[in-house]
Amino acid sequence: MSKVNQISYRHARPFGRLPILSVSPAVENGRWPAKAYAGEVVPFAATVFREGHDALAAEVLLTSPTGTQTVHRMVAGAPGSDRWHTSVLLSEEGTYTFQIRAFADDFETWHHNASVKLAVGVDEELMMLEGIALLTRAAAEKGRTAANARNLVELAEKLGDTSRSAQSRFAEAETKAIAKAIANQPIRSLITLSEDFEIKSERSRSGVGAWYEFFPRSEGAKFDAKTKTWTSGTFKTAMKRLPAVAEMGFNVLYMPPIHPIGVAYRKGPNNTLTAGPQDPGSPWAIGSEAGGHDAIHPDLGTEKDFAAFVRAANDRGIEIALDFALQASPDHPWVRSNPEWFTTRADGSIAYAENPPKKYQDIFPINFDNDPEGIYFESLRIIKLWVSRGVKIFRVDNPHTKPVAFWEWLINEVNAEFPEVVFLAEAFTRPAMMHALGKAGFQQSYTYYTWRNTKAELESYLTEISKASSDFFRPNLWVSTPDILTEYLQFGGPAAHKIRAAIAATASPSWGMYAGYELCESVARPGAEEHIDSEKFEYRPRDWQAAEKGGRSIAPYITKLNQIRAAHPALRQLRNFELHHTDDSAIICYSKHLAAEHTESGKADTVLVVANVDPHAVRETTVHLNLAKLGLPEGATFEVHDLITGETYKWSTDNYVRLDAFHEPAHIFKIGKVL
Amino acid sequence: MSKVNQISYRHARPFGRLPILSVSPAVENGRWPAKAYAGEVVPFAATVFREGHDALAAEVLLTSPTGTQTVHRMVAGAPGSDRWHTSVLLSEEGTYTFQIRAFADDFETWHHNASVKLAVGVDEELMMLEGIALLTRAAAEKGRTAANARNLVELAEKLGDTSRSAQSRFAEAETKAIAKAIANQPIRSLITLSEDFEIKSERSRSGVGAWYEFFPRSEGAKFDAKTKTWTSGTFKTAMKRLPAVAEMGFNVLYMPPIHPIGVAYRKGPNNTLTAGPQDPGSPWAIGSEAGGHDAIHPDLGTEKDFAAFVRAANDRGIEIALDFALQASPDHPWVRSNPEWFTTRADGSIAYAENPPKKYQDIFPINFDNDPEGIYFESLRIIKLWVSRGVKIFRVDNPHTKPVAFWEWLINEVNAEFPEVVFLAEAFTRPAMMHALGKAGFQQSYTYYTWRNTKAELESYLTEISKASSDFFRPNLWVSTPDILTEYLQFGGPAAHKIRAAIAATASPSWGMYAGYELCESVARPGAEEHIDSEKFEYRPRDWQAAEKGGRSIAPYITKLNQIRAAHPALRQLRNFELHHTDDSAIICYSKHLAAEHTESGKADTVLVVANVDPHAVRETTVHLNLAKLGLPEGATFEVHDLITGETYKWSTDNYVRLDAFHEPAHIFKIGKVL
Repeated sequence: MSKVNQISYRHARPFGRLPILSVSPAVENGRWPAKAYAGEVVPFAATVFREGHDALAAEVLLTSPTGTQTVHRMVAGAPGSDRWHTSVLLSEEGTYTFQIRAFADDFETWHHNASVKLAVGVDEELMMLEGIALLTRAAAEKGRTAANARNLVELAEKLGDTSRSAQSRFAEAETKAIAKAIANQPIRSLITLSEDFEIKSERSRSGVGAWYEFFPRSEGAKFDAKTKTWTSGTFKTAMKRLPAVAEMGFNVLYMPPIHPIGVAYRKGPNNTLTAGPQDPGSPWAIGSEAGGHDAIHPDLGTEKDFAAFVRAANDRGIEIALDFALQASPDHPWVRSNPEWFTTRADGSIAYAENPPKKYQDIFPINFDNDPEGIYFESLRIIKLWVSRGVKIFRVDNPHTKPVAFWEWLINEVNAEFPEVVFLAEAFTRPAMMHALGKAGFQQSYTYYTWRNTKAELESYLTEISKASSDFFRPNLWVSTPDILTEYLQFGGPAAHKIRAAIAATASPSWGMYAGYELCESVARPGAEEHIDSEKFEYRPRDWQAAEKGGRSIAPYITKLNQIRAAHPALRQLRNFELHHTDDSAIICYSKHLAAEHTESGKADTVLVVANVDPHAVRETTVHLNLAKLGLPEGATFEVHDLITGETYKWSTDNYVRLDAFHEPAHIFKIGKVL
Repeated sequence: MSKVNQISYRHARPFGRLPILSVSPAVENGRWPAKAYAGEVVPFAATVFREGHDALAAEVLLTSPTGTQTVHRMVAGAPGSDRWHTSVLLSEEGTYTFQIRAFADDFETWHHNASVKLAVGVDEELMMLEGIALLTRAAAEKGRTAANARNLVELAEKLGDTSRSAQSRFAEAETKAIAKAIANQPIRSLITLSEDFEIKSERSRSGVGAWYEFFPRSEGAKFDAKTKTWTSGTFKTAMKRLPAVAEMGFNVLYMPPIHPIGVAYRKGPNNTLTAGPQDPGSPWAIGSEAGGHDAIHPDLGTEKDFAAFVRAANDRGIEIALDFALQASPDHPWVRSNPEWFTTRADGSIAYAENPPKKYQDIFPINFDNDPEGIYFESLRIIKLWVSRGVKIFRVDNPHTKPVAFWEWLINEVNAEFPEVVFLAEAFTRPAMMHALGKAGFQQSYTYYTWRNTKAELESYLTEISKASSDFFRPNLWVSTPDILTEYLQFGGPAAHKIRAAIAATASPSWGMYAGYELCESVARPGAEEHIDSEKFEYRPRDWQAAEKGGRSIAPYITKLNQIRAAHPALRQLRNFELHHTDDSAIICYSKHLAAEHTESGKADTVLVVANVDPHAVRETTVHLNLAKLGLPEGATFEVHDLITGETYKWSTDNYVRLDAFHEPAHIFKIGKVL
């Protein structure tokens, strides 16, 4: 076909001999690498088809970061869709590459035609001859093992034994040995390769983690009623909270900015404009005479104290995530050293943050266009500095108020040297921007989860984040933040808090919780979707022990959720989320299944969640399970063990459920033995 | 930013300063050019957004095939979507290229901030200074016209006149003259360009046409009852039918293959295996001693007769479309000259078509892989030969049984030399293949229209083909073919035939009809979705005049439909199809609107169709119009003129409709004057 190829195609990438389209995982057709994490089971798919009726097949040719090449046969999906599928567990970190290989499956074509014709006694000898020709050709192929070639030759000889009936000879083509030989080394022709695609497989923590947020200054803060003065908590006092955080099963501790806080225009309690001398200010108003983004707030301790805190956390299996809030208080050293990193107004003053007519005079936003080289490299320096201090996770504050191109540059720079560094985007904004930040490189993102409370909302959103956007947008389901206290939590009581945590912890491999959630703190600033007396502007020490003793804490429930996550690898996957139908408008049912081939134990792991999302009612319904999604045979009866209550039930396809929000609002079942 | 750019981006195509994503029209992100036709109004869209709150804007930079560059400002779409839109009428044939240009709209940002602040008396003088700085900078920009710069400088001076109140000075920024100056030459910064995209603008007939199909051998065929012999129709006798076809308003006449027909295994009436001496055979069994794909069936006439026929058709405004059926009868000259273009079986025989265990011994399928160079160039030779004989449209038979890559090669080769040649894909198969053929280059495609008969089916399908797939798949809505006679037509009578024609003719700019439809021929071969005594295997002369005189023909209705199409440019567009809601499950309502700026007359053209798709009933309902889609102001009352009956009604948003299938099953309204 040299002449045809040479003179004729006018596009860079015409169709190959067999069309291969819509390859997945891929982001914008390969413009950016797709995301995965080590240990993730990634679904591969492609639209592959051909002219006419002959059989075809498709494979994923996968090359791991260390250069290991593997071939994964795909299976045909829904009839008429021409979609082909397989799933592969990516075990390494680094960049995988893959191609889809389509080919005419010549043995299957012959086998199908022969079996149809022999069944009606047509062309019997001709089909034997066709088989012999095919097998003989295949046996001579380069790259076929000698044993395999021998199998084919022997089969060809049997097909040629005219002393036997065609049917009896054809039966030789249907043995297990032949099936295995053919499956191992198919007889391919019209081989067509797709383009190369990339998957960035990041470290497991990029995708899997239980996050806890606290303000270190609150942990151990003390108010002296006599002198009416506050003493800030420090890294040393906050360290005492680490065992409890670890015991609840959290493995990432995120702290709001730990840098010096500006004095100019400092905000008082409840975001008021005037701060008293005892008000510590918002940690996001970064920078004072004591330093900027590279410094530690003197109240919290020294660099050494921070190092000790990081060590203590790590010793308990907890990683530290720092806040990266790229903005400055008017007292930030940059304001004097690099005024070009801000915007100077026509009157010569430096512009503070505004959303006209609202003014935020305690914050100077960065200008990324005056001196991009300067601010880009200063940001890189700061991240690298904290990496050198043991921080490998950054929760980025409001990334959607900075250029997407900046983040793409910064994250790629950091990850090129430190691929283990994880960035979490705190962007609560429109979908296009949230998705773009994921494409630009953010390993994780906050989500709309807090505002998805009804069954219909949850079904739609959890499906979207586990499927449609999963190649570039990796959700971290936070049940609460210092900024968000939804009406659902304000008025739902402990039941609401349990429901939201149970769903977040099981539906997504990453979830998070802000301190106080376990105490069901839910008093809002009147008319706002925020906590009253927000910890952003005040010290807020909590008496954890008294709360637990008084039964006012759901910490034991949270602990159980994280234990279940630790015990069930299926919950540490994102893309295996599957809905099941229930008849009730408030009972949601979903499962996460991990096939035996993808578990360390070699046994399938399946978790089934049935939750009543109405925190004010007892609900009853029938749950209708799609057993195939649970890895179970059609019509099976099996045991389900409730990992919350310890109870065991006998279930099959259709099952009665009663969930009392005031008692246990959710079943979290492990699928047990088939009966 | 040189250092940043130089050392840092690790992808070929990182985000620009302002993100631009999901550009449309585009096929697979630009892998293939998008389709359009000269005269088509093409919607452009892109997802464009930025960090923070400042204003941004987007434009299409369009370069026509002759090199004319135009700029088209886009408007923001649904809130929160970050989609930007505009529509452009492409008037030239050839390849257009375009980019999306995003920019920070600095005047709008200043204007918004200033108006909000002035309203509450904040920062008044500062905003004046900011405005002056902005206008002064802009006035000095290269490329700004002197008049425009003067406008800006004058405004700056006015803003600086501190003897006036800030409000009064700001009012100067709100004059029409300033609005115009800014709209013409916006004040841009952070300019970001997307990649280049291509649109292949083909000749109008690629997208717009009314097609008629007849078998020339039937037109004028005569049966002699005495001798019981048939005399075939010829190009000369068929020519007599041309005036009637032209009068009905058709402008493409498609003829099944006109080549010599094989004798071996010739099929008899109703696809039986044995043909009598009087049976003419299927025109798709191409090739005999008289020649192959380059020859004309001796019964039809000579090359000269064909030329005369083409001329006669052209003289009446009708183009000839030939069938390109790439397959051979066993008698085809290729079988001897180039047996490598077929498949030789293990017994040395040439493989006929099969779908095991079914056999089609009268057809040898082509093998495209034995000698691709040979068969590719032979196909190219044949197409070019018929082009030289005056044929510029080819209806390709079963393209989905040949490699997609072959079609991509062939169509690109032909169009490189003859861009006016149009290929229509007759692929009735799964969506992936049908869409791939469109991407490969087919200008038009048959569709699932014949099997979409209910309101719900039509709403979904007509929306799909006019929107989602319109960049690559251009529908030709055939109401019938010699192969397809649906139950809807078998049992729906004349009402069904009128409904199907009315919808096809108005919903799509290309529609088609096979001879006999106007006579409502609807007797099926028992149990089949095909005509009894199919014309594929028999002569079928029709007494057109007797039928019309006897009132058994709906030709007058068909004529009216094509007249309406000719009079209304809105109907010659594909992508302007818009649904409106009706309360009834069988009454469908849709409109096609063409804005005044896109019509030759300079007046908007709007057609509104309301059709009862239940051919057995009288239906009543309320139709709820989306007036914006009709180019009408909210709440308007206006006249609608029924182009079928001539009646005029006064309509507004919600309108009562009664449609009697046995009388007039559809309203086709022209929107008249607003009252």
